[in-house]
Amino acid sequence: MIQLEPIGRARTPWSKPGQPPKQGAAAGVRGVIELDQRWAEGLSGLTPGRDLWVICHLDQSRRLDSLMIHPRGDRNRPLTGVFNTRSPNRPCPVSLTLVRLEEIRGNELHVKGLDLVDGTPVLDIKPYLKGLDAPLAADGDKQ
Amino acid sequence: MIQLEPIGRARTPWSKPGQPPKQGAAAGVRGVIELDQRWAEGLSGLTPGRDLWVICHLDQSRRLDSLMIHPRGDRNRPLTGVFNTRSPNRPCPVSLTLVRLEEIRGNELHVKGLDLVDGTPVLDIKPYLKGLDAPLAADGDKQ
Repeated sequence: MIQLEPIGRARTPWSKPGQPPKQGAAAGVRGVIELDQRWAEGLSGLTPGRDLWVICHLDQSRRLDSLMIHPRGDRNRPLTGVFNTRSPNRPCPVSLTLVRLEEIRGNELHVKGLDLVDGTPVLDIKPYLKGLDAPLAADGDKQ
Repeated sequence: MIQLEPIGRARTPWSKPGQPPKQGAAAGVRGVIELDQRWAEGLSGLTPGRDLWVICHLDQSRRLDSLMIHPRGDRNRPLTGVFNTRSPNRPCPVSLTLVRLEEIRGNELHVKGLDLVDGTPVLDIKPYLKGLDAPLAADGDKQ
């Protein structure tokens, strides 16, 4: 077992799993990442307009009944392995969300694209870096 | 405190932090993600050539002396907040790595781009999805 201490919490309008908008539809929704006050200095250098990764522990996710699931809970989509989906219900429920920073107020990051349940524990915030985070093209160059 | 159980381990040529190649230079390096056997069915549907996110617990990372650091440990780069960097030494040391799947053999994912220390606990594997993981352009459309 690994023990991790969250660095903050997501603040959003949604109190329950299933309420946040799904893939893509979430791009416009606004939320706040409330960082633990003692880490606020670590935000230095981040400016509005930057794209950030937010990694969270999905503490309200459901236990898995099966490793084969319908993507987005849509029974019209064929069953596939859970690691081939972005389902929040997974063996180790951590999430990965790309958000756009709009404003920093003290220990609060106001962002666009935060599709999480209110109170979700945040594990990490990282800058999006094109050289690391854009897939390689078939010829091996970054796209 | 959050308790998480890793789903597997990274298998790479590097035994110590600092040895894996840094940002970008890592794109070509090969490694293996050894999934716990009981989760192997969850890999169904993943095919060679797919881009995957690997999220790990950096269990060998150093304790932070300061929240202001030199990016990539380069003293010629000005100090900036740790959340503005991809340093492995961070308040809650989780990593995010984009890899390309080359082959699946049972519970092993053979991948390109795995810049981790051998034995690093893997928390999650997710498919790269352009609609979620490419930044929005300034006008709000995905790039």
